[in-house]
Amino acid sequence: MSVDFSLYNKVFENRIRLQIMSVLMANEGYDFSSLKDLLDVTDGNLASNLKTLEKEGYITVEKSFVDRKPNTRYKRTDKGAKAFENHLSALENLIKQQYK
Amino acid sequence: MSVDFSLYNKVFENRIRLQIMSVLMANEGYDFSSLKDLLDVTDGNLASNLKTLEKEGYITVEKSFVDRKPNTRYKRTDKGAKAFENHLSALENLIKQQYK
Repeated sequence: MSVDFSLYNKVFENRIRLQIMSVLMANEGYDFSSLKDLLDVTDGNLASNLKTLEKEGYITVEKSFVDRKPNTRYKRTDKGAKAFENHLSALENLIKQQYK
Repeated sequence: MSVDFSLYNKVFENRIRLQIMSVLMANEGYDFSSLKDLLDVTDGNLASNLKTLEKEGYITVEKSFVDRKPNTRYKRTDKGAKAFENHLSALENLIKQQYK
């Protein structure tokens, strides 16, 4: 009757990180300003959660200039994609358990 | 392309609280020692997360004696059940979004 939570990932407990990763799974890349608008969070909150994902090796950061303005772009890594899929599996198991 | 996270509940971000609530949805009531064995957590960790759920009004606590030994039993409230169902809906939406 207990759900297998071995795939549950503490990194994705946080709502903002869950959302960032969800966006980066659906898109090849996403820049900081667009992520900020989409998730409706402060610069500091977004930056700190992006940093956590980067430290885990779940996303990569590319800094460049677009029309002479600095642009910071984020992409998922294969490791991040796998970890996120595992986490969703754990959540799916939990949901299935409820409706059994 | 963004997922509706309005039903996402910070109280259930924590894995232990998610598991406690999952158990209390599937069972009318559960006692402290059985929860501890099931979730494989320390007394302190379990007690602190149960307290958080109790403060939110999501679970109730019943203290009694069984065979002259103190027994602490937890039950979900209607408010808790509703909040948990809403949270699972938010997670379900996220999962659906990924496999679309």
